[in-house]
Amino acid sequence: MTPIRVAVDAMAGDRGSAEAVAGALEAATDRIEPILVGPDGLDTGGLELIVASQVVAMDEKPAEAIRGKPDSSLVVACRVAGAGGADAVVSAGNTGALLAAGLLHLRRLPGVFRPALAVVVPTERGPSLLLDSGANADARAEHLLQFAHMGSVFAEEILDRPRPSVRLLSIGEEPEKGNRLTLEAHALLAEAELNFGGNTESRHLLSRAADVVVCDGFTGNVCLKLLEGTIMAVLEALRESVSSTPRGRLGGLLIRPAARKVRSRLDPETYGGAYLLGLRGLAVKAHGNSSRRAIANAIRLAARGVEHGVVERLQERLPARVATSAGGRLGP
Amino acid sequence: MTPIRVAVDAMAGDRGSAEAVAGALEAATDRIEPILVGPDGLDTGGLELIVASQVVAMDEKPAEAIRGKPDSSLVVACRVAGAGGADAVVSAGNTGALLAAGLLHLRRLPGVFRPALAVVVPTERGPSLLLDSGANADARAEHLLQFAHMGSVFAEEILDRPRPSVRLLSIGEEPEKGNRLTLEAHALLAEAELNFGGNTESRHLLSRAADVVVCDGFTGNVCLKLLEGTIMAVLEALRESVSSTPRGRLGGLLIRPAARKVRSRLDPETYGGAYLLGLRGLAVKAHGNSSRRAIANAIRLAARGVEHGVVERLQERLPARVATSAGGRLGP
Repeated sequence: MTPIRVAVDAMAGDRGSAEAVAGALEAATDRIEPILVGPDGLDTGGLELIVASQVVAMDEKPAEAIRGKPDSSLVVACRVAGAGGADAVVSAGNTGALLAAGLLHLRRLPGVFRPALAVVVPTERGPSLLLDSGANADARAEHLLQFAHMGSVFAEEILDRPRPSVRLLSIGEEPEKGNRLTLEAHALLAEAELNFGGNTESRHLLSRAADVVVCDGFTGNVCLKLLEGTIMAVLEALRESVSSTPRGRLGGLLIRPAARKVRSRLDPETYGGAYLLGLRGLAVKAHGNSSRRAIANAIRLAARGVEHGVVERLQERLPARVATSAGGRLGP
Repeated sequence: MTPIRVAVDAMAGDRGSAEAVAGALEAATDRIEPILVGPDGLDTGGLELIVASQVVAMDEKPAEAIRGKPDSSLVVACRVAGAGGADAVVSAGNTGALLAAGLLHLRRLPGVFRPALAVVVPTERGPSLLLDSGANADARAEHLLQFAHMGSVFAEEILDRPRPSVRLLSIGEEPEKGNRLTLEAHALLAEAELNFGGNTESRHLLSRAADVVVCDGFTGNVCLKLLEGTIMAVLEALRESVSSTPRGRLGGLLIRPAARKVRSRLDPETYGGAYLLGLRGLAVKAHGNSSRRAIANAIRLAARGVEHGVVERLQERLPARVATSAGGRLGP
């Protein structure tokens, strides 16, 4: 069986190329072949290198970065994947730039207005998909409807959830609670061919959220970062409090395996990255502060997406769904 | 010294009037005199009762509820405070209805476009104010500027922070990261007479957030509920994991005091409620799922606001600030 080739942007992320290379080496198996995209002479530990002479910084404006830096690692990785030289792309870089490069070189799936960043959140009863978690800061109600359809197909095909439940993230479970965007989106979702269960509140994201939770990219990104920050802050506060007394330190030693298990289940690095759904190719955005572990997990996530044919499943099923549920208004 | 009279809506909150009465009794001291507003015959344990025959439900539309139920406990509590019969109002009810009743009976401070719900978040380096945490689901950039000014006055006067730091909640620290609203608000805040430190991300809300963090009410409410839900989910996951082995159970016993301390510091019931800033009277929204402890803390919060003259300080300092920093565009 031909291994799955994943183009890894070695110049993105806050921790530098050595960490990206280490992550790629960790993910490499008979089945997964990471290809590094970075500067000439990069020590890849034996992995294939595709040379790219430029780097997109985290704070660059996406459109300008893509236009002005056609030979950046991010753009080259997407171009290689778009031309068939790789099956998927992984980057820990600038989300907006990844989206722009993806739109340019992987291109949109027919019928899709806006790609969405879909992140798998580890809830008590298994994974739950949150989207858009940051591809588009502003969204319209029709976009949220598409996100729901894309998330639904993804959950069905990849997370093995028949008839996945979908909820809209808002500030109250009643349909009339929310902002203008969620009120409009609720009405569209309620009429769509989806297993729509109404609004959910952010307090349920880690407990009994739906299979698919839909929101605009600003709200989703705020949620994702707050989840990460709060989980780490609570565990750290507990560690400090416990280690402040001898009795606590002894107890801390005893609960260490249990605490590690919880930390590992909830750690954002465990899921490693988010799928950019809605493109003709597969792109995974790894965490910006990516450790080698997170990069390795993002590469594995990308490979799993290729194996399950995420793009093909979306391509087969999405346009019909979108056209049906929106009465033609959103047809391809 | 005359005690501070706090009108407590006894019919709001998910836990019923007995819990509200218990909270009021817990908060009652020589200094604080809770007055219960509820149905005739309510057992108040000796506290003063103001009779109100109607109840606003959590899912009622605010404007209709206020118009249709002039004799509801929520409206009566606000009317009593507006007429000088109480120094402050506490309700665990429908936020929108509290806002509507507050606007009607307490009225807006001169120069204020929209009141904001300001909640004190317990960060590692002390309290930090998050507003708007849910009074207005939709907001314009000028509203966020006003929220920053109100929060700043509050932090200076009540939290004793000279020249409080202000940040805008967004999805990146760079000024150009965000949605349309935050991009516009960033520009206004940068020009204002505030100690504005730029954008902050939600991941820092519990760690190194600013003295005042500003956002629209939808985002703030999502953050508040996610903080609560995540803190509880992490502690609960840890408790379950720890108690699944004999070794863990022993360790759990040993760390119990340390864990309780963390839980108590982070528990939303500890801060109990949120101030509705921008009205001529003082209103505190208690947590919807209010326990007696949360109600008691909300009453104490209201009393502290009265003692510190929150409303008077805002009234003195707000219109000038707003008019100055917005170049007259937002003058009273």
